[in-house]
Amino acid sequence: MEKLKRNERIGALMKVLSDNPNKIYTYNYFTEKFNAAKSTISEDIVIVKGLVEKLELGQIETISGAAGGVKFIPILSKNDIEKFLNDLCNKLSSKDRILPGEFVYMTDILYYPNIAKEIGKIFATHFIDKGIDYVITVETKGIPIALMTAEILNVPLVITRRNTKVTEGSTVNINYVSGSTKKIQTMSLSRRAIKEGTKILIIDDFMKAGGTAKGMQDMVKEFNAEVVGIGVLISTKEPQQKLVDDYISLLILEHVLEKEDRIHIYPNELLRL
Amino acid sequence: MEKLKRNERIGALMKVLSDNPNKIYTYNYFTEKFNAAKSTISEDIVIVKGLVEKLELGQIETISGAAGGVKFIPILSKNDIEKFLNDLCNKLSSKDRILPGEFVYMTDILYYPNIAKEIGKIFATHFIDKGIDYVITVETKGIPIALMTAEILNVPLVITRRNTKVTEGSTVNINYVSGSTKKIQTMSLSRRAIKEGTKILIIDDFMKAGGTAKGMQDMVKEFNAEVVGIGVLISTKEPQQKLVDDYISLLILEHVLEKEDRIHIYPNELLRL
Repeated sequence: MEKLKRNERIGALMKVLSDNPNKIYTYNYFTEKFNAAKSTISEDIVIVKGLVEKLELGQIETISGAAGGVKFIPILSKNDIEKFLNDLCNKLSSKDRILPGEFVYMTDILYYPNIAKEIGKIFATHFIDKGIDYVITVETKGIPIALMTAEILNVPLVITRRNTKVTEGSTVNINYVSGSTKKIQTMSLSRRAIKEGTKILIIDDFMKAGGTAKGMQDMVKEFNAEVVGIGVLISTKEPQQKLVDDYISLLILEHVLEKEDRIHIYPNELLRL
Repeated sequence: MEKLKRNERIGALMKVLSDNPNKIYTYNYFTEKFNAAKSTISEDIVIVKGLVEKLELGQIETISGAAGGVKFIPILSKNDIEKFLNDLCNKLSSKDRILPGEFVYMTDILYYPNIAKEIGKIFATHFIDKGIDYVITVETKGIPIALMTAEILNVPLVITRRNTKVTEGSTVNINYVSGSTKKIQTMSLSRRAIKEGTKILIIDDFMKAGGTAKGMQDMVKEFNAEVVGIGVLISTKEPQQKLVDDYISLLILEHVLEKEDRIHIYPNELLRL
């Protein structure tokens, strides 16, 4: 390939690193790709590092040694997270979202790629230090935010199903009790989905009593793996006592008042940003 | 913010544009963000445009006029697509993926964020000129590739459910016949999910007889919207006659031979790259 100028290399480096967050690239990868000396690439990386800090996009981490290289860790700033969550609450609390039974229509928002991506970035920012091997969710509404979280953490996504499927091969099935309706439900996951001894992050869109999260915790135990974090987009204020203890929720849904045409939802103040 | 140097602006521009493919950014957005003159940003864009062409990443399109600005259209090169699809076939044809009933275990691959993203890029490359307003899929296995396609096309994703859910509000339900098992199945979608008169791209992971795709087509009709494309990752060679006509399939599954321990899957030669 034609040699690139420095400003072109900076653009190209930025693209490669930010398209593949948390993935380590060796310096050799770039010397070959850009047909440039290692010292040149080193100088480029310094510039990219400065840029990422100036724009508060996260961190560029350089790892020395044989397995060394460089990676981009996207970290949202406190301000960006606050602004995003406030906007999201405004969107979600629009009164035409109230559904019979005091539910809130939110799938349009949950499935919007850019919104799911931002939510994924917030979870990834929060759980980045946990050494996560897999993100797990249960079908269906939580899949987009879980996938985006997994993309940013650069790990596989695992989706537990409500029913056993032939396309999953042999499965582990567990029963769990929905915390709010007290109904017994089933969850099914392919035996091949999770390796023993790995660290798992549970992601879901909504938590009321926490029965589903508890079910996923039990499922993970069946694989001799360890849950190192639980992140949900929205948890209800009541019941305050959930079936799982250690979770973070980005938003709190206080109540949906059908008669008064009002949804009360706000960012979780306990979220350590 | 501190003023950025040219090479930093190029890096930042590249990041913003490639993080948000097919989204139009005004020049004003960048003059304000980077505290730079419009003429400076124009020159920067020219450099980014050249870079994107040199690296065969796609196109930078500048739109003039009041609603004008600049956007990045990721277009994978023929070579990149071929290489990716061949790698994917190698992965999928590993004999330990054969499941009883001559199914293939592939959820680990379908749910891997970077793989789903590449598949999304291929679909987006193929359907970019269709003026798509929504990507639609049916739960569950196709969701990751459909979400990534929607992200790259910068449009919302719509997910039809197998059952009616209270969280969807009033729904449209249709019955359809599975083309291979001849069983009657149901599909449910919120009335709010699709606006009239819009253009829809159907994305799914697998097509045998095409019953599910046909069902989604019927669903879209109920919303007075138009299907402008159908993309599936894998279609089976038999039956050659599917229930939908105009679809593209990235891979063809010829057969799974349980006794001989062999999966025969290859890239679709008819895919116009």
